[in-house]
Amino acid sequence: MAPPGYSIGIDLGGTNLRIAAYSGQSQQMEAISLRTRLEEGPATVLRDMAGAVRSLQQKFASHGSFAGVGIGSPGPIELPEGKLRAPSNLPGWDGLELRSELQHLLNMPVIVESDANAAALAEWRLGAGRVHGVDSMAMFTLGTGVGGGLILNGKIWHGAMGMAAEPGHTVVYPGGLMCNCGTLGCLEMYASATAVRRMAAETAAASAGSLQSRLKENSAIHAHDVAALARHGDASSLEIFQVVGRSLGLGMASAVAALNLPLYVIGGGLAQAWDLFSPAMFRSLAESSQIYRLTAPENVDRIQPRMTNVVPAHLGPEAGLLGAALLPIFQ
Amino acid sequence: MAPPGYSIGIDLGGTNLRIAAYSGQSQQMEAISLRTRLEEGPATVLRDMAGAVRSLQQKFASHGSFAGVGIGSPGPIELPEGKLRAPSNLPGWDGLELRSELQHLLNMPVIVESDANAAALAEWRLGAGRVHGVDSMAMFTLGTGVGGGLILNGKIWHGAMGMAAEPGHTVVYPGGLMCNCGTLGCLEMYASATAVRRMAAETAAASAGSLQSRLKENSAIHAHDVAALARHGDASSLEIFQVVGRSLGLGMASAVAALNLPLYVIGGGLAQAWDLFSPAMFRSLAESSQIYRLTAPENVDRIQPRMTNVVPAHLGPEAGLLGAALLPIFQ
Repeated sequence: MAPPGYSIGIDLGGTNLRIAAYSGQSQQMEAISLRTRLEEGPATVLRDMAGAVRSLQQKFASHGSFAGVGIGSPGPIELPEGKLRAPSNLPGWDGLELRSELQHLLNMPVIVESDANAAALAEWRLGAGRVHGVDSMAMFTLGTGVGGGLILNGKIWHGAMGMAAEPGHTVVYPGGLMCNCGTLGCLEMYASATAVRRMAAETAAASAGSLQSRLKENSAIHAHDVAALARHGDASSLEIFQVVGRSLGLGMASAVAALNLPLYVIGGGLAQAWDLFSPAMFRSLAESSQIYRLTAPENVDRIQPRMTNVVPAHLGPEAGLLGAALLPIFQ
Repeated sequence: MAPPGYSIGIDLGGTNLRIAAYSGQSQQMEAISLRTRLEEGPATVLRDMAGAVRSLQQKFASHGSFAGVGIGSPGPIELPEGKLRAPSNLPGWDGLELRSELQHLLNMPVIVESDANAAALAEWRLGAGRVHGVDSMAMFTLGTGVGGGLILNGKIWHGAMGMAAEPGHTVVYPGGLMCNCGTLGCLEMYASATAVRRMAAETAAASAGSLQSRLKENSAIHAHDVAALARHGDASSLEIFQVVGRSLGLGMASAVAALNLPLYVIGGGLAQAWDLFSPAMFRSLAESSQIYRLTAPENVDRIQPRMTNVVPAHLGPEAGLLGAALLPIFQ
């Protein structure tokens, strides 16, 4: 369905910087993975991006016409200008004119999106949205933070300043934990990989169970370690995913009340723990949303466009990078 | 801006039934107000509507072409079918095919909308939205319940089944008070006229202040009585509007995080207490939303399309009725 030729996408993360060329015809992607050298400052990171783009351009010169460069960046970000606004995962980048800086370095037009919008575009065009045949959907990306992307009638919904679809900063527990963004009780304090790690560390400090012994072996416990313990029946780890599911259900209920969309897609690294958090998520969503109770399909795997479907992402962790590469083609 | 001729709107409420003819050319409206005879059942109420429509048609026969009939109804309601789904303000109407029943009685096409969507359409076309010059806005209607309407890129956003824009059923206090809809902690339990009356009754029962003496005089205390007491400095009444403002700020923060719209309009009868609840609402919104903090205009009366503007409705309590009459013209 994508036109021939190729495009290049950049997925800018606080830890990893990935640049990929995507061929529309073969639907294949070739990626370069770098560390995001935040300590060297934005200029160095921008030069790293530009270098990788040029090397992929040389490599793909035989793949037909070049459609352009798209970049998915952590938000908040003003769009379409591509100006960063105090992004908590890119310390020191506040006010950076990402689009114009990169255009200047590359001497070509660049499309900037939030990383979560890019992932939503890919899931809609090539993943869960395509399978369900919907024009509109929301995606929640559970990673270091909780990002979001909104496709309404076949277009990314940006809102007035490009800051729409920030479910991670929906307050789910008023007066709750202080988020990086300065608000108390944001969803991302309860449903991100970071939140899982924090809860695991807290549990380990307070008890003598499996989490504590796991933490003794390895002080840098990861969300997938907690998931592994939960799957082996560790009660504290299971409870952590209950918290993830309950808060996610509350956050989704807000989106359901606002938009009544036919499809909500849960992606990001933590979505691999779908088996652990989704039962609590569906319970919490049903408790928190009359619209969901009225419109929930009996079986979420069935395709019911007029129902409220909630499904895990189809494309996995590549969605953001693929979406960035799709930007020059579809937006 | 409206074409010549006239249209007829119906505002169906749990208490009042209003039917109005609206002349696009003169921008004038003539309304018939009836009591909603719920105790007689839906068939009687539908006949009352049809009778009023016919009488207005005879009266306006000289006003040019007749554009049709629109009706604003309490939700939840499936659209465009116009089938009611357990509407809490119309007991006994669950499953009623409002559109087809009324079309059958009138022998002409009828457009059904939620009452709050109709009010949002009117505010967007002829009220706050027109003044601000925006393509997209959300309206919160504070009445018996808390309704909502969403205009995105110049169209009412219905969602998959017409159940979008239900901010009254956004959970603002998880585990809070039980709403009619079956969910704990919905916004409408804290920010509707019903909520104000409930809090006033609770306060009166628990204390010996002004509210108690007011309640002794008149057991059916109304939200405007509580507002009057608050404006005279009664501390308990002032606190009630703090609760309204705080919860409304939380509910709006969810909408801001999801949609980043340029304009949020607060209407309905309780919006007349704007002076009492809006300071707490703005404080709560700023505390609960980074996007709002980044985009709040210094002065909400200034027109700033790229900012997050929050303003009281311009059209007053007629917005829903006017919006119903606009449906055959603009949708």
